[in-house]
Amino acid sequence: MDQYYFIQAMKETSPGSATIPVLCGMWLKNLMPCWYLLNIDIMEESLPFGNESFSDSKHLNYLTSEQALADFAVLIEYLKTTIAGARYSPVIAIGGSYGGMLAAWFRMKYPHMVVGALAASAPIWQFGDLVPCGTYFSIVTNDFRKSGTGCAESIRNSWNAINNLSVTDAGLQWLSKAFLLCSPLRSSQDAVLLKNWLSETWVNLAMVNYPYKADFLQPLPAWPIQEVCKFLKDPSLPDKLLLQNVFQAVNLYYNYSGGVSCLDMSETATKSLGQMGWYYQACTEMVMPMCTDGVNDMFEPQKWDFDALSEECYRLWNVRPRPSWILSMYGGKNISSHSNIVFSNGGLDPWSAGGVTQNISDSLIAIVIPDGAHHLDLRSRNPLDPKSVQQARALEICYMKQWN
Amino acid sequence: MDQYYFIQAMKETSPGSATIPVLCGMWLKNLMPCWYLLNIDIMEESLPFGNESFSDSKHLNYLTSEQALADFAVLIEYLKTTIAGARYSPVIAIGGSYGGMLAAWFRMKYPHMVVGALAASAPIWQFGDLVPCGTYFSIVTNDFRKSGTGCAESIRNSWNAINNLSVTDAGLQWLSKAFLLCSPLRSSQDAVLLKNWLSETWVNLAMVNYPYKADFLQPLPAWPIQEVCKFLKDPSLPDKLLLQNVFQAVNLYYNYSGGVSCLDMSETATKSLGQMGWYYQACTEMVMPMCTDGVNDMFEPQKWDFDALSEECYRLWNVRPRPSWILSMYGGKNISSHSNIVFSNGGLDPWSAGGVTQNISDSLIAIVIPDGAHHLDLRSRNPLDPKSVQQARALEICYMKQWN
Repeated sequence: MDQYYFIQAMKETSPGSATIPVLCGMWLKNLMPCWYLLNIDIMEESLPFGNESFSDSKHLNYLTSEQALADFAVLIEYLKTTIAGARYSPVIAIGGSYGGMLAAWFRMKYPHMVVGALAASAPIWQFGDLVPCGTYFSIVTNDFRKSGTGCAESIRNSWNAINNLSVTDAGLQWLSKAFLLCSPLRSSQDAVLLKNWLSETWVNLAMVNYPYKADFLQPLPAWPIQEVCKFLKDPSLPDKLLLQNVFQAVNLYYNYSGGVSCLDMSETATKSLGQMGWYYQACTEMVMPMCTDGVNDMFEPQKWDFDALSEECYRLWNVRPRPSWILSMYGGKNISSHSNIVFSNGGLDPWSAGGVTQNISDSLIAIVIPDGAHHLDLRSRNPLDPKSVQQARALEICYMKQWN
Repeated sequence: MDQYYFIQAMKETSPGSATIPVLCGMWLKNLMPCWYLLNIDIMEESLPFGNESFSDSKHLNYLTSEQALADFAVLIEYLKTTIAGARYSPVIAIGGSYGGMLAAWFRMKYPHMVVGALAASAPIWQFGDLVPCGTYFSIVTNDFRKSGTGCAESIRNSWNAINNLSVTDAGLQWLSKAFLLCSPLRSSQDAVLLKNWLSETWVNLAMVNYPYKADFLQPLPAWPIQEVCKFLKDPSLPDKLLLQNVFQAVNLYYNYSGGVSCLDMSETATKSLGQMGWYYQACTEMVMPMCTDGVNDMFEPQKWDFDALSEECYRLWNVRPRPSWILSMYGGKNISSHSNIVFSNGGLDPWSAGGVTQNISDSLIAIVIPDGAHHLDLRSRNPLDPKSVQQARALEICYMKQWN
């Protein structure tokens, strides 16, 4: 058998695509007989126009999934001619999250280039009306519900507590101090930003609720939601006491390593994930409807509001989103004519709401990892890995070996 | 069974793609139980920037096969929502020539949108080094060889006859008169243009060598090469007599309807095929290597010269061709993971040189029509149709019925 080559499509958030190498690591190393594991990551060098890349729509125009796939095609051809022995070796695309979508889509659009794809936590159906818009946040809520008595309920009650305090200047001042904010809240409008920031924090915790210490978005302890929930046991506390507990919880997320002197609401994740690129894509083709109802989830009710998104996109980038394009381009749920794709999803991961969680055919396979958060299966092996992720990896490799 | 809808991808030679309707006609009408046969043709209205469409590379940038496919995707979605009953009807892509390539590629890239494709005379392999560059012209030559004794040989000898005459002014004058040229030849360089124009004429005759009167590129009699060859029986004639016969032959092509007062070397086909668009595409992604050797064909020997093409493209459009891109994009010969495509090719058609003429799998089917010229099978039925094309159409429909 020829060697296998893996092209790992990681989060692609710069216009155009990706340079490469970060070879040969990760969990596959000891499990298959080969390797070049090419981690196509978002690196600064992959900005096709350098500092100009985000400057205007002329440059941003290249930041599309189609362009990323075309770049992978050219990259693979280049690698096949430059790496000794690679010419006739089968290639497998691997990716997580948006990278997982790219991996799946790459197999769909360029099946002559890769024998198959592993699409981990790839929400390829979080578009149009393919899935209910509320499932995503109800999964987040379930994660908190299961991680401690009173936990989800405390968060649900926190919104009103903030609303109550934010009507007075004294209340806003108190909130600013209690949450150790770098920039104090000056209006009830700022309190909306506080709530959004908290919501994103809970969502991010659900994504990185890994069984061991990790630092994917932030440095965090094992099962971080359980840790956070230790502060959130009593949902019936008076507003200020409740919110002091909420602060303890988010402080664990933002300040687990210590040494942070104030919390900055403008940052929810590390900058390295290229938020700006992602927001631009969300304003063009990656339109993912999301909503909350406050009943099936612990968030304030918010309908999916496409028009508001569209206005915001126009204001920020001078573009209008095109919500049906991804469906036209990649087929929505009608993908059964493709082959050799494994879709893995974590049961704890809110993105599984838009993922493929049932087999579509003999070679379009869904693997669910009940104890897994966001693409846990793509992370390095760890002694604390649950059985379910170990089995998922073994199964993924079993399928890969059938591709050639 | 739901109705079928056919999207016919005709020659796409304007930037962006195609408007439509020209419904329900052609040979399928009496053979399958339905239809909307949507003839996506090159119409003036399909120019996305009107008269500006060809003005500069900014506008021409949209003239790519990928953009044409994306346009078809959007068009199909639109038609499905606007034609009563179309929503859940299967769609089949049909096309000839470049349109045939688009039909095949559309099934490859958007299999969720069409249940299959009929790619007639689609030279999807006339790229890179997938096929020998000389086969195209040797097929043309065979057509003439088979159509009359001395015919191909007369043409082969005509080049030297022209060369001999074009060294003197008197010779150039004689040539200009003998060929009834609208603009007289002024130099031996002009004589090269004369030879190129004659070559293109022979090639075009091979493409439209239909068994009945037709006017695809020009109004022509049945089996026009046989008619032409009636003038070209004696290859051993002296230069002037030989060339007078050659004139009779090309005059049949350009002046079959009569009434043409002079022949214009700047036109080989009708303008409606959008030559300009095609030349631009040949200068970007549609790079098709061609060559002649004067031994296996009746033309003057000419190697494939990519550098010359590249220079010419740079001069004309300020672009450089990218010869490997079509292979990267559409897989070259490595297309076995796709399904439900019938490739039909005419044995008389030079484009069959780059076509798929052998089955690739149970659902990637090659049909060869020995007596067929360029996509004869897509033309209206005719009493003079050879058996081979009748059988080919029956087989095409048989396969189509299996797609759903």
